[in-house]
Amino acid sequence: MYKKVPAAYLQNKVTGEIGNAAGIFYPTNTAEVVACIKDAASKQQKIITVGGYTGLTGATFAKQEEFLLCLKEMQQIIKLDKQTLTLTVEAGVTLQAIQDYLAPTPYFYAPDPGSKAATIGGTAATNAGGMRALKYGVTRDNIRGMEVVLADGSIVFVGGLNNKDSSGYDLKDLFIGSEGTLGVITQLQLKLRVKPATSRSLLIGFNNLTDLAPVVYQILASTITPAALEFFEKSGLKYAADFLKIPMPTMTGTAFLLLTVDGSNAECLNQIESLKKLLEEADITTFKIFTTQEANLIWQLRGAIVSGVEASSQQEPLDIVVPINQITDTIVYMKKLTETLGLDGVFFGHAGDGNIHACIMRQNLADTLWQEQLATFLNQLYEKIAAIGGLPSAEHGIGLLKKKYFMKNLPSEKLGLMRQLKTALDPNAILNPNKIFD
Amino acid sequence: MYKKVPAAYLQNKVTGEIGNAAGIFYPTNTAEVVACIKDAASKQQKIITVGGYTGLTGATFAKQEEFLLCLKEMQQIIKLDKQTLTLTVEAGVTLQAIQDYLAPTPYFYAPDPGSKAATIGGTAATNAGGMRALKYGVTRDNIRGMEVVLADGSIVFVGGLNNKDSSGYDLKDLFIGSEGTLGVITQLQLKLRVKPATSRSLLIGFNNLTDLAPVVYQILASTITPAALEFFEKSGLKYAADFLKIPMPTMTGTAFLLLTVDGSNAECLNQIESLKKLLEEADITTFKIFTTQEANLIWQLRGAIVSGVEASSQQEPLDIVVPINQITDTIVYMKKLTETLGLDGVFFGHAGDGNIHACIMRQNLADTLWQEQLATFLNQLYEKIAAIGGLPSAEHGIGLLKKKYFMKNLPSEKLGLMRQLKTALDPNAILNPNKIFD
Repeated sequence: MYKKVPAAYLQNKVTGEIGNAAGIFYPTNTAEVVACIKDAASKQQKIITVGGYTGLTGATFAKQEEFLLCLKEMQQIIKLDKQTLTLTVEAGVTLQAIQDYLAPTPYFYAPDPGSKAATIGGTAATNAGGMRALKYGVTRDNIRGMEVVLADGSIVFVGGLNNKDSSGYDLKDLFIGSEGTLGVITQLQLKLRVKPATSRSLLIGFNNLTDLAPVVYQILASTITPAALEFFEKSGLKYAADFLKIPMPTMTGTAFLLLTVDGSNAECLNQIESLKKLLEEADITTFKIFTTQEANLIWQLRGAIVSGVEASSQQEPLDIVVPINQITDTIVYMKKLTETLGLDGVFFGHAGDGNIHACIMRQNLADTLWQEQLATFLNQLYEKIAAIGGLPSAEHGIGLLKKKYFMKNLPSEKLGLMRQLKTALDPNAILNPNKIFD
Repeated sequence: MYKKVPAAYLQNKVTGEIGNAAGIFYPTNTAEVVACIKDAASKQQKIITVGGYTGLTGATFAKQEEFLLCLKEMQQIIKLDKQTLTLTVEAGVTLQAIQDYLAPTPYFYAPDPGSKAATIGGTAATNAGGMRALKYGVTRDNIRGMEVVLADGSIVFVGGLNNKDSSGYDLKDLFIGSEGTLGVITQLQLKLRVKPATSRSLLIGFNNLTDLAPVVYQILASTITPAALEFFEKSGLKYAADFLKIPMPTMTGTAFLLLTVDGSNAECLNQIESLKKLLEEADITTFKIFTTQEANLIWQLRGAIVSGVEASSQQEPLDIVVPINQITDTIVYMKKLTETLGLDGVFFGHAGDGNIHACIMRQNLADTLWQEQLATFLNQLYEKIAAIGGLPSAEHGIGLLKKKYFMKNLPSEKLGLMRQLKTALDPNAILNPNKIFD
């Protein structure tokens, strides 16, 4: 049962730090998860549930001799139910495997986080988002039910195939996003949707970043329902183009909104017409409706920004979210702060969600200075974000790396409430201890 | 502070039973709610939060000298924010007041439960649904954030204006649907949407109830996104027509699906065309696309079924929900069971949600026989529902009236988990004690 832990599982992917673990176990079914947890509980052994090890916050990093419970061998796709539009899977199934399984069917699972090697259980534990969250919601909105093993080894099924539920407390949503601290998700019922027939993408260019926000408000307050509404800057896209060895496309402006609508051909045309009208009324002429080929290229570039940055420098990946009316002010604030501190940054994100990803880059800074400047940046940023009602994470989670900032800026009543819930469900703190909060 | 309790607040609306309460207090702001709860906590006085008193499950019924905390004077509409599309209101604002306030604006608040006299706080506490839930979600999906006073009098703000959140446990969804047992909701941030330009309704008639389900699956698995997808029978609609003193419209069939699509004119026409195609391919010719006037009439009738039944007989209102692929089997089962027991029933509901409302009617039965037969019916029904993965409540809540059946059919691990949460948040059980579960 206790196997040697692969080296990759001992390293904090973001910081490079090497941890330690008491061992690793790969259950192949729920009964084995139960046995493992009961065994651990009897010995007061701490447990970290691990999936694809693709997380960005150190949520599965072991540094206190925790025992790793790795679900990646629980990879059975159990059932496709066409009547309730539900796909039942084990927690270790990867997003890639789900996409491959559904490819020949008329259905799709909407959440589309960056890493397709992530396990579905891991995306539920972090409430992962992705490009399509604006129209189709985040992971939380696309899970019907889950089997969860609790800290005492009992099995509970939360949620289910009913489309509505006013029958007692909402247990399902308590486990989603709890990063393995309240229970181990072993099986999931995923909500499927019918694939849209087609999609169209449109790029809007701006010379001033601050001109971008009013257009976002107008789009969100219109009858247009974008599947994606991304923003990025020409400077950020350049990292992706260099990385992919693709020439930069011709673009008017320095900051951009990339919008996709999907549906039937008629619906797409209709939405694009509404968009053109909205942009004309706002006196914006710097937009371009893409051909499918052009759209594929720009989305490929958008998807490669982080890889491009990582190929160029060590970086701190941010995942902040702010109320939508604070989005450009926040980006402007972040840019000024990086400049003041002599740091370099690339800013992009899910504009329609108010979710700003930024890569704060080390470039050639000496290690001590980088650590110091980065700490100053993060301290000031997270304090500012909290002051305007934002949060440190929209879709990556808090884990270990954002814990300090999360706890510092969280109202004490809210932290108290989270601690009460943790104590109620895991009184001996055996499940992923000291993650999210201490 | 302790005022005389109005007689209406002492009566269980469904059973007619008369309870008793220690007093009633009408706070006008959150500080007064805090003071009241702290005072009650210090005296171990139990508290029931009351709103419009429109609930259907006895959730606010006092029978053990509880103290009523009535929020109906907290009726301030605080702010309309057009950038984040958010309406901030106090918990005592009624749905009617919200609809009236938004009428001259381009925005609407999507949830539309039957009683417009319900307070918004009450609809959050029960996670109320309504006709438009299929497209726009239930109350849970339309609340961005809430101010909640906890059992110790501390104030916590859960959720907020961020469109995504992976920053700690989902506290907001724990309070929504908790029927006043975990905290007192005092203020809410509601998600607004842009009003659709128009809508079209279509009626599909069936001679056999069992032919209805496959059409529901096909619609849900298509690209059509109905705002409403209701079912009812001619016999049920007759109660409404008699009550409203309106002649019954000409209809082909005995069981019906009433479907509405909304959006731009082009979108509506598009969806209606897709529907016609779907129905033609399924060999269904008994459908009718309504004019606005005809649609208004049929919706008026649909909305008056319960009033029509109530004008005719004492009744037990049901709110069960089943996985969508169990919907017609469940209705057929319920019909057979009522017949076997010599009871009369009217069946209708939100077909697209799997949410079956039924009125089980007493008619001329003697009181003892009615009580006996009804108890037998409910016992068998709720056991059957649980066996097929359904729930006793989709949108009304459990309260007092469904508690027995809810507890009996709930897996013990799930009940245990709910009790742990209650104990963690309200250790002295002062908030709406013995509701949902004992």
